[in-house]
Amino acid sequence: MAKQHMQELLQQMTLEEKAAQLLQLATPFYEGAESGGEITGPMESLGVTPQMVSDSGSVLGLAGAEEVIRVQEAHMAKNRLGIPLLTMADIVHGFKTIFPVPLAIGCSWDLALAERSAEIAAREAAVSGVHVTFAPMADLVRDPRWGRVMESTGEDPYLNSEFARAFVRGFQGKDLAEDRTRVAACVKHFAAYGLAEGGRDYNTVDLSERQLREFYLKGYKAALDEGCEMVMTAFNTVDGIPASANQKLMRDLLRKEWGFDGVLISDWGAVKELIPHGVAEDEREAALKAILAGVDIEMMTSTYVHHLPELVKTGLVEESMIDEAVLRILQLKEKLGLFENPIRGADPAAEQEIIFCEEHREAARELAVKSAVLLKNNGVLPLNPGQTVALIGPFAENSDILGPWSWTGSRQDAVRLDQAMQRRWSDGRLIVEGCGVESITEEQMLSAEQAAARADVIVLALGEDSEMSGEAGCRADIRLPAAQLELVSRLGRLGKPMAAVLFNGRPLDLHGIFEEADAILEAWFPGSEGGEALASILAGERNPSGRLAMSFPYSVGQVPVYYNHFNTGRPKDAPDAQVRYVSQYLDVPNEPLLPFGYGLSYTTFSYSTPVLEQDIMTGDEPLRLSVTVTNTGANAGEETVQLYVRDLSGDVVRPVKELKDYAKITLQPGESREVTFTLNEPQLRYYHADLSHRSDPGRFVVSVGPNSRDTADLPFQLS
Amino acid sequence: MAKQHMQELLQQMTLEEKAAQLLQLATPFYEGAESGGEITGPMESLGVTPQMVSDSGSVLGLAGAEEVIRVQEAHMAKNRLGIPLLTMADIVHGFKTIFPVPLAIGCSWDLALAERSAEIAAREAAVSGVHVTFAPMADLVRDPRWGRVMESTGEDPYLNSEFARAFVRGFQGKDLAEDRTRVAACVKHFAAYGLAEGGRDYNTVDLSERQLREFYLKGYKAALDEGCEMVMTAFNTVDGIPASANQKLMRDLLRKEWGFDGVLISDWGAVKELIPHGVAEDEREAALKAILAGVDIEMMTSTYVHHLPELVKTGLVEESMIDEAVLRILQLKEKLGLFENPIRGADPAAEQEIIFCEEHREAARELAVKSAVLLKNNGVLPLNPGQTVALIGPFAENSDILGPWSWTGSRQDAVRLDQAMQRRWSDGRLIVEGCGVESITEEQMLSAEQAAARADVIVLALGEDSEMSGEAGCRADIRLPAAQLELVSRLGRLGKPMAAVLFNGRPLDLHGIFEEADAILEAWFPGSEGGEALASILAGERNPSGRLAMSFPYSVGQVPVYYNHFNTGRPKDAPDAQVRYVSQYLDVPNEPLLPFGYGLSYTTFSYSTPVLEQDIMTGDEPLRLSVTVTNTGANAGEETVQLYVRDLSGDVVRPVKELKDYAKITLQPGESREVTFTLNEPQLRYYHADLSHRSDPGRFVVSVGPNSRDTADLPFQLS
Repeated sequence: MAKQHMQELLQQMTLEEKAAQLLQLATPFYEGAESGGEITGPMESLGVTPQMVSDSGSVLGLAGAEEVIRVQEAHMAKNRLGIPLLTMADIVHGFKTIFPVPLAIGCSWDLALAERSAEIAAREAAVSGVHVTFAPMADLVRDPRWGRVMESTGEDPYLNSEFARAFVRGFQGKDLAEDRTRVAACVKHFAAYGLAEGGRDYNTVDLSERQLREFYLKGYKAALDEGCEMVMTAFNTVDGIPASANQKLMRDLLRKEWGFDGVLISDWGAVKELIPHGVAEDEREAALKAILAGVDIEMMTSTYVHHLPELVKTGLVEESMIDEAVLRILQLKEKLGLFENPIRGADPAAEQEIIFCEEHREAARELAVKSAVLLKNNGVLPLNPGQTVALIGPFAENSDILGPWSWTGSRQDAVRLDQAMQRRWSDGRLIVEGCGVESITEEQMLSAEQAAARADVIVLALGEDSEMSGEAGCRADIRLPAAQLELVSRLGRLGKPMAAVLFNGRPLDLHGIFEEADAILEAWFPGSEGGEALASILAGERNPSGRLAMSFPYSVGQVPVYYNHFNTGRPKDAPDAQVRYVSQYLDVPNEPLLPFGYGLSYTTFSYSTPVLEQDIMTGDEPLRLSVTVTNTGANAGEETVQLYVRDLSGDVVRPVKELKDYAKITLQPGESREVTFTLNEPQLRYYHADLSHRSDPGRFVVSVGPNSRDTADLPFQLS
Repeated sequence: MAKQHMQELLQQMTLEEKAAQLLQLATPFYEGAESGGEITGPMESLGVTPQMVSDSGSVLGLAGAEEVIRVQEAHMAKNRLGIPLLTMADIVHGFKTIFPVPLAIGCSWDLALAERSAEIAAREAAVSGVHVTFAPMADLVRDPRWGRVMESTGEDPYLNSEFARAFVRGFQGKDLAEDRTRVAACVKHFAAYGLAEGGRDYNTVDLSERQLREFYLKGYKAALDEGCEMVMTAFNTVDGIPASANQKLMRDLLRKEWGFDGVLISDWGAVKELIPHGVAEDEREAALKAILAGVDIEMMTSTYVHHLPELVKTGLVEESMIDEAVLRILQLKEKLGLFENPIRGADPAAEQEIIFCEEHREAARELAVKSAVLLKNNGVLPLNPGQTVALIGPFAENSDILGPWSWTGSRQDAVRLDQAMQRRWSDGRLIVEGCGVESITEEQMLSAEQAAARADVIVLALGEDSEMSGEAGCRADIRLPAAQLELVSRLGRLGKPMAAVLFNGRPLDLHGIFEEADAILEAWFPGSEGGEALASILAGERNPSGRLAMSFPYSVGQVPVYYNHFNTGRPKDAPDAQVRYVSQYLDVPNEPLLPFGYGLSYTTFSYSTPVLEQDIMTGDEPLRLSVTVTNTGANAGEETVQLYVRDLSGDVVRPVKELKDYAKITLQPGESREVTFTLNEPQLRYYHADLSHRSDPGRFVVSVGPNSRDTADLPFQLS
């Protein structure tokens, strides 16, 4: 059916049917549904009638081919005009084959694998009947207290943008109509949700429009540039107005300035939440403000379906505004081929065949390997296969390694660390002692000490359970739970070599473990194949190559700490800095414990002095920087060569470093390779005092190195 | 001399003399100076010539009648046109008679005493030859990590505004020309310095213009409405541009919108700091950007004097812009009477007579009593005079109680707590054991335990030394130093009644002391008479009445936490809130440990159910709320009855509570008093989406109570 037909269909709809088309309900409302989906908000009585459900436009949290087919067929049978339901779900980092959490994927710096993970998630979701995934999340994050940092790819707008594009490509493919193994993507949470005050979920966001544009909007924009079909509003305020009522953000910026003509959906309950936010007196005003802002679909509250018809009749809302919203939804359904085939890709036979197949699991394993970041290593890793290993801690034999937002995944399917290690350290050379995440009994402590005493080397499997991060999973204290720190301290007293593997959803304050352990491998929530991936790294079969996509703070009292900050007028390292009167804390460094871009390897790399072809860039002539990287260790390994730029003087203050490019290279022991970066004038543009986006002639510094801290810096001029 | 004469004088000045008139140097540059003043920034070689010094317009940190007279006479002898020097200094909370730090004064909620403290500071400073004080500081503060919170009156824009006005009245009096016992005030730091990111001094500030206007600008504006003569720029950026180069803030807002025509001065070195900030390539550009922004006086860097003449000659700066700046300075000198009498109030004989006189000390004592906040009391306070008291801790016999920004004060003059208690607990009934602030030896621990064992009651004198707060005194960990917490823990094991007096410059995380102590008296840095004031409270001669002007966080991981926050769309207390999906931390409450407005007394007060005369307010008819407060305890006491308002639905989100008024009443035991508040429509105005400042009809809640948490709430309507 063409666009013309959608227009005709719209003409046949009553005002009530149109309003219902904008309603999205969770699965339990629908005939034929058996599962409840995941409930992430107030699941109160919505006061919707069976007629409204029959007229509703989309369903949330529905997956599984047979069930989707049942629900869709029942729906089609009841819907007067035969408009199929759109099915949407949170397929964030995998469907059944669970990949590492997005923050971990961010640490892979591997866009091809990221795209592949989204493609696999889409394929599994599509055969299960899902049409739209609520991903990617493109929120820039700087506060590890916030539980949803695990869902972001980190603190850098460039890296976030690249990953957002990769995920959209993976989810959507080239043509959603043709390729029924893909799903539509919905970038979220528009906008700046990552800046929730105090790192407390749903909290106030306040920032200047300049910061919004310079840092926070870029990820969403990149997703849309890649063709992302949908956008989800954020729960937070931006400039005093909740996103779901924010006309400036939605109408002026998203629609007019960016030209987005896809479907805009509220987050769960966010339209009715305009009332507690304090910008709507009641549900009627909430509906009014959301539709005026341009929200097409209202997720899981019913203010539209109850009030839009009357708002149109009383002239407060033009019917054309409703029509536009409905038309966008119909067009998405058309693009997905639902009018042709309402069950689209849902296919019980294919489900059996492809979901969690070995090919998918292998991809998950590969990404888990690439996402792990070696934070410290005194040489204890890789483990010597001849040694006896004591695997100790809450994640030793724990399958809670899928991470938040993996509701369709199954912990039973996850490969635990002990299972994967058992395959490598057989013959009783692996002793496993599990314990609790937040509390460890004295008996468990003693067992752990006894196990450690019998071993040559201790491997600690520590971290946060999946409830400790994710949506609404915010922590004011970002250290490991005290019981685990006590375990570390007690085992540390044995004086044995000790490596730690960390399972967690946020950068942690590592005090209490960083000094004690000889090696630390940051595994994040590594997904279905996590144990296997990590065991292969511990055993030295694979060489870790992840690089932090988010700084690890020295302590929570330093938050927010991020690499691309401004210099201040009194930087601590200024040549004439006095001891006291500089920007610093009295008790902790300004720098994070581990900076953005950081990560070790089982080999070492040396960098030659970088060379600039010429130190002047013009609008036509790019800058070319070359550096030779050599593998100076004994193992093959992958290095991520990072390119940063600093604008020394701007119309407004500029970050001390900004990632502009990077190259991942694999080098054999002793091998060297020259890496050449090309930097163009558009990469130096930024938002000026008048919000114009352009570059200025002047002095710059280009930096190259293995992370954002340890760089070689060369001056250049833009003329 | 009239304005006409200043114009004539200006005509006679060369361009170089004009540029030098905008230069402010520290005392050591001047002939006749002996003291070095206080150095709070890079004191590098400025490259100024003797001629520039002779032509300079003002001096910083000079005080002392004889020295000022010498410097001024030497200057007048050399200055070609006989233009006297303006002397400026940081007289923040007293000159020799040191009052409690401003945050403590904020806790007094006593505007008359605050005004009196400024009047006394002005009087002592004026006879010492000071013409301008760099006060009041009107920065709204929400982050206790920031060391300069001690210099603010807290987190509430209304209270800050009232105190800013009181300080300006006190410093300036009614007529600076007539009253030579007053000094000109300079409100600082324009603007929003209190929002330094991460609570790290000098750091980036970013916020929306709405938040800037709604919360951060009000204190400065109040000071200017009261006639404050000068404004100081902040060190920080606002919307990406350092305040000292921020044309929007200085030219558009301060000068044009607010009509400020007084002198605008940079903070120490802030003009040259435009270079490290990254908005100026060199000193020449720094001078250009600062003068274009409208900064009249450049403090302690020399970009103006070196570059303005050339910038005028090359046409980048209009000479009229320099003229305006010079004229404003000349006019201030004229207003202060310096052309008539260049030494103005400087008077060695009067110095002897009035500085640190008994009358002034009494005022300082009174304000120290009123500033102390009783945070907890299980009945151990007031102390029983018959008991033996062990006074233990780093502040037991410590004279470091003046606090930061008291450079003209003398610790030797300060009344220590042990000294004042000794007068009350003679006959060996007071055992004193001091120790270090950040480290306590085992010997000191043992002595403390022995002293405690011999006593009936323990009084702990704990806190931060004055270097731990103030400018550049930022802490990532806001607990008491670990050694003091250990002392508390060890003494707690003795099971004796234990009261703590806290000396500190910021709200602390009180864990480790709040549970252990039976009573806690927050003394802040109480100033010269601190010991005496506190002893009188401990002994029950005075009844504490302070109320917190800034919330005490539960932990640093909760920062920022403040009472006038927004509600979010998923507040924790919403009727349909789910356990998980609300705005909260998993590990700490949302609420601070102790809220804004909180404070106990040696008596108790009960509040009747408040009554509204009518529950509808109009533009003409105010709302009247009455409540009867009764002293239900056994001691006379002072209560601070607080009135808050909440706008339930706005054009933008509105705070859950906003202080609108308060009344301090003193009640004898058993006495009742009816307090009536009148609330007018202008008090309900706020900045809308379009930044217009107005109120909206609709539903509100008015609350009354003893603090921002424990209020009785009544609905009303604005129609």
